[in-house]
Amino acid sequence: MSAEVRVAVAGASGYAGGELLRLLLGHPTVSIGAVTAHSSAGEPLAAHQPHLLPLADRVLVETSAETLAGHDVVFLALPHGQSHALAAQLPDDVVVVDCGADHRLTDALAWDRFYGGQHPGSWPYGLPELPGGRDALRGARRVAVPGCYPTGASLALAPAVAADLVEPSVVVVAASGTSGAGRAPKPHLLAAQVLGSASAYGVGGVHRHTPEIAQNLSAAAGTAVSVSFTPLLVPMSRGILTTASAPLRAGVDLAAARTVYEKAYADEPFVRVLPEGQWPETSSTVGANTALLQLAVDEVAGRLVVVSAIDNLTKGTAGAAVQCMNLALGLPETTGLPVVGVAP
Amino acid sequence: MSAEVRVAVAGASGYAGGELLRLLLGHPTVSIGAVTAHSSAGEPLAAHQPHLLPLADRVLVETSAETLAGHDVVFLALPHGQSHALAAQLPDDVVVVDCGADHRLTDALAWDRFYGGQHPGSWPYGLPELPGGRDALRGARRVAVPGCYPTGASLALAPAVAADLVEPSVVVVAASGTSGAGRAPKPHLLAAQVLGSASAYGVGGVHRHTPEIAQNLSAAAGTAVSVSFTPLLVPMSRGILTTASAPLRAGVDLAAARTVYEKAYADEPFVRVLPEGQWPETSSTVGANTALLQLAVDEVAGRLVVVSAIDNLTKGTAGAAVQCMNLALGLPETTGLPVVGVAP
Amino acid sequence: MSAEVRVAVAGASGYAGGELLRLLLGHPTVSIGAVTAHSSAGEPLAAHQPHLLPLADRVLVETSAETLAGHDVVFLALPHGQSHALAAQLPDDVVVVDCGADHRLTDALAWDRFYGGQHPGSWPYGLPELPGGRDALRGARRVAVPGCYPTGASLALAPAVAADLVEPSVVVVAASGTSGAGRAPKPHLLAAQVLGSASAYGVGGVHRHTPEIAQNLSAAAGTAVSVSFTPLLVPMSRGILTTASAPLRAGVDLAAARTVYEKAYADEPFVRVLPEGQWPETSSTVGANTALLQLAVDEVAGRLVVVSAIDNLTKGTAGAAVQCMNLALGLPETTGLPVVGVAP
Amino acid sequence: MSAEVRVAVAGASGYAGGELLRLLLGHPTVSIGAVTAHSSAGEPLAAHQPHLLPLADRVLVETSAETLAGHDVVFLALPHGQSHALAAQLPDDVVVVDCGADHRLTDALAWDRFYGGQHPGSWPYGLPELPGGRDALRGARRVAVPGCYPTGASLALAPAVAADLVEPSVVVVAASGTSGAGRAPKPHLLAAQVLGSASAYGVGGVHRHTPEIAQNLSAAAGTAVSVSFTPLLVPMSRGILTTASAPLRAGVDLAAARTVYEKAYADEPFVRVLPEGQWPETSSTVGANTALLQLAVDEVAGRLVVVSAIDNLTKGTAGAAVQCMNLALGLPETTGLPVVGVAP
Repeated sequence: MSAEVRVAVAGASGYAGGELLRLLLGHPTVSIGAVTAHSSAGEPLAAHQPHLLPLADRVLVETSAETLAGHDVVFLALPHGQSHALAAQLPDDVVVVDCGADHRLTDALAWDRFYGGQHPGSWPYGLPELPGGRDALRGARRVAVPGCYPTGASLALAPAVAADLVEPSVVVVAASGTSGAGRAPKPHLLAAQVLGSASAYGVGGVHRHTPEIAQNLSAAAGTAVSVSFTPLLVPMSRGILTTASAPLRAGVDLAAARTVYEKAYADEPFVRVLPEGQWPETSSTVGANTALLQLAVDEVAGRLVVVSAIDNLTKGTAGAAVQCMNLALGLPETTGLPVVGVAP
Repeated sequence: MSAEVRVAVAGASGYAGGELLRLLLGHPTVSIGAVTAHSSAGEPLAAHQPHLLPLADRVLVETSAETLAGHDVVFLALPHGQSHALAAQLPDDVVVVDCGADHRLTDALAWDRFYGGQHPGSWPYGLPELPGGRDALRGARRVAVPGCYPTGASLALAPAVAADLVEPSVVVVAASGTSGAGRAPKPHLLAAQVLGSASAYGVGGVHRHTPEIAQNLSAAAGTAVSVSFTPLLVPMSRGILTTASAPLRAGVDLAAARTVYEKAYADEPFVRVLPEGQWPETSSTVGANTALLQLAVDEVAGRLVVVSAIDNLTKGTAGAAVQCMNLALGLPETTGLPVVGVAP
Repeated sequence: MSAEVRVAVAGASGYAGGELLRLLLGHPTVSIGAVTAHSSAGEPLAAHQPHLLPLADRVLVETSAETLAGHDVVFLALPHGQSHALAAQLPDDVVVVDCGADHRLTDALAWDRFYGGQHPGSWPYGLPELPGGRDALRGARRVAVPGCYPTGASLALAPAVAADLVEPSVVVVAASGTSGAGRAPKPHLLAAQVLGSASAYGVGGVHRHTPEIAQNLSAAAGTAVSVSFTPLLVPMSRGILTTASAPLRAGVDLAAARTVYEKAYADEPFVRVLPEGQWPETSSTVGANTALLQLAVDEVAGRLVVVSAIDNLTKGTAGAAVQCMNLALGLPETTGLPVVGVAP
Repeated sequence: MSAEVRVAVAGASGYAGGELLRLLLGHPTVSIGAVTAHSSAGEPLAAHQPHLLPLADRVLVETSAETLAGHDVVFLALPHGQSHALAAQLPDDVVVVDCGADHRLTDALAWDRFYGGQHPGSWPYGLPELPGGRDALRGARRVAVPGCYPTGASLALAPAVAADLVEPSVVVVAASGTSGAGRAPKPHLLAAQVLGSASAYGVGGVHRHTPEIAQNLSAAAGTAVSVSFTPLLVPMSRGILTTASAPLRAGVDLAAARTVYEKAYADEPFVRVLPEGQWPETSSTVGANTALLQLAVDEVAGRLVVVSAIDNLTKGTAGAAVQCMNLALGLPETTGLPVVGVAP
């Protein structure tokens, strides 16, 4: 790991960009090159990311192919729709890790329905813990980092649908902190609105992460999986607590389900099926690239219920991005990635 | 409304007791008599309820049949299992409104499974907005106030199951503030644990409110309704945001569903189906005896999704209790009950 | 109180406007006329104030002298600098209650230094609890509602400086919820920024409320009072907790200080000096027009320390405005104003 | 740094203990030995510290001289009053780092007044950034880690009093998250009490950290410094935002004050005087061993105002403890200590 990897972060003024930089500062073989932004170009990075003390002297430069040139790895943490054109201008041998949605969906119809316009195509999908998910990422030069909700939901349900523990019809309700909504100031994200309040949004299957969850679970299941997804906004900064359930196949009990999950994640460094009786809390994952899971079988209702906790900015975005960079570069997958949360 | 109603509140040191007193202070025909507690008896009420300025000179007295005697209405806000024996010592013509669980369940087997021990029997159930729910409450002398989660879930789903819009198999995920867990100090309810964290508990059908939700929905449906219920703890003091869904019957669309809901709640003073496009936020209900609802039809997943917001302490507990007192006494049902939330 | 008072609220889409409407809905002799806004004119009020169910059918109209005409009372909850010109267009016999800063400062130099431009002059100052403060408000036709910080600080310190308990040199540090910063979306007010963080701003005497605090205290003292004021932003929606201290005059002990405070506020319906040992919490004042105070004497440091709690939107803004309207109209001062907070 | 240092943590079930373990897991030359507790002995560490995944298989053992034997370093994170007797049973050549208060105060009278009973004597004081503070810590075998408030206040004011920028009479108001109050469940620390509320406690010079602040500042000043200290509880888990001020000496302006502070902390790896215009937020320090400072001169009030932000559990407790261990063992002082906060 002696050779230094030079990385750039586009969108460094936002939350995903800040988390990327936080993690990259702790990565032993990385050196941080350009930090770019658009409307904040020319401003000190510290005005936007005051917690990144070692980068306090950095200045944001304009996001462009020129400023991003000359790096081994380019992380894109841009508003949806901006990655495609920019990435096209970067050399093929540069590792481009896109935290945006542009290249996640393989289905052009789903793209059109949820994002609209020309389908920009798909890239290797950055959730190595999905069945077979790691293969396409080793040595990849383009990576689409999953959405935060799809990460929580897919890790919670993929083993169940892959092992046919449940019918391919799942209900996902996920409570998220507000950093997942980004840093652009919007009235409903004001602290005074969010503090003391819980709300749902994108209800009825209209949230853009719905087809991504369905894509992941259908691939895992080998058959189309129906997904009812409802995201909730709750008064915290980070974290997604996902509650996922589906009708149990006949004869599946908790022991069988646990065996499937434990086997599925036995070798995963970042996914942990908790001991029985211990339920995930998002606080345990704050700042860590981990996903914590627990299962229950509701015999009366006949459903498997799985709960997962992640930090939307870490395993849900920037941590996954670094994990994928490691795979792309042939580094040990866990390099530079914390597994200990900052709690309480 | 000239005759004064003299009321007592047992369990006045807790959150439900405090909310009862807050509402009763605003009730025009009530005078507040005994305020009782057990371990805090002898202490000033203000040490526990500093927000109740008009009662700042009150002292908590021991909860007993003696201290509760001589009132027209007795509210019981006691730990589960303590109401039954105490109520048995109160005269039959006193209105006893029990905020505890002792007399909610009609099914002795469900009681035994979820609470254990001898079934104390059931009282008129204090959710007047359920189909036919108001009748048994008019003039009642014993009332069992619903649990907070069952209130949110039942209001969200009863019209759908009653009108057969959906299959009788529902999934409920409800995010609650922590006041619902009461005021007894427990490590997992400490602010440092709760702030910045979301978690699930009672997963897999084991939460005690599960059979109560099933009881309500089955009665509304006229057939057994299967309930998968998962409660979440999120970092707020008050409020429950319930996400409820069920498989749509063939041919049901959003317009049809809205019509059913709007009709079901057309004359209800405390339940509001919001205009299309407006989704409930718990902050809108803080301190108010209201339930706000919105619906979506997920055509791809084939599910009706209903979201409801209540304040767990008001419509979820103490407001419902006062509403039931009004019905029991023949007062206008809305007397003394706020419909305007304290937001932001 | 039989004659109905017709009121308008300008700036009804903001936090102060929403709180005014919430209180006015509970006022027995008021009918709510025009609700106005500027950039949101034409939108449903419910899109901005979903908690005001009884006004759910109202539409915001453009703020102008025309739309505000024909009311007995006009409340202005506008950005600073907009009240003066608008008020000048309203008839002299209309009661205009300005929640903005335009007419608070009597000193043109202070105005110029902290706000800049032409001094719009001063109106009767809406803090009746100040020494002699009530006189100018009875029958007034123009009222300048105090800033939220000056309310907390002035109530905490006016008795001490008036009675010469302390030297005229005070230090005020006040922790505020973020609703005090208004509803215009700004990056530093996003929930993700505010949750889990405390910060100071306007440090070093540059906050605009500094001269207002000095004006109030100097008037109470009869001599110039030096004010060091530091506001803090903490992760809550409502509330200001003010810590105020000053060097004790020789011979002043706690008993003497308490006597002064108790006497100063003995007849005040909205200010309460708490019993010894009980310290103010902002939660006790949520939604209430109250100020709670407690005192300590630090003998080692030789300082009187006073802590006050208010709700910045109620006693700190909208409640004070309604209280002043009551005085202006000759209504009982407490009409329609809650004294019970919504806690927890 | 090749030789491994074997450490034990006593009080591993609490917040300070958990933070110690979190940091020690990231320390390159440390191996974690015994993790001990008292009432939780025998329970899995994971039941108390679910975020410490690498220690998920550890079991808490009883805190005793026996279980703590055989380690190079013993961290004590015990309730006040328990460290002294325990430490006396540990060999003299073991590095004992006490996060409790037992050995912080040098003045037996102050000890008796604020803690009561026999003065246990003082140990080298673990705030290396104080003038001369580092010397006594190099090679020390006993270290008293400062209180969290004294750390924030002393770093904010020591340069000012040492350089005689101000009169020796300071006012400190510090807003803290609730993890500083520990993990023992107490009613006023319940989330429902804390959320949405700010309060003061220990007002009037009675908080136990008051003499510790005075001790530090008096030592820095070379003369007795009078301290008025008021701690606030605000709704966050971690962080202390300290506002400190004092009367300016004649002729001191901002430039002079900044020069003093920048010089005082020029070589400190963990203390940063922010650029002009940037004010500290506690979120920037979450999980980091840093203190961020900013200054203002209030010319009208004639006071220097300094604001500091720390994480009470990191620089305020466990980070300082590890920093002191590094000094005691002759390791580079910054080993294993994060300087990047987890924000937002």
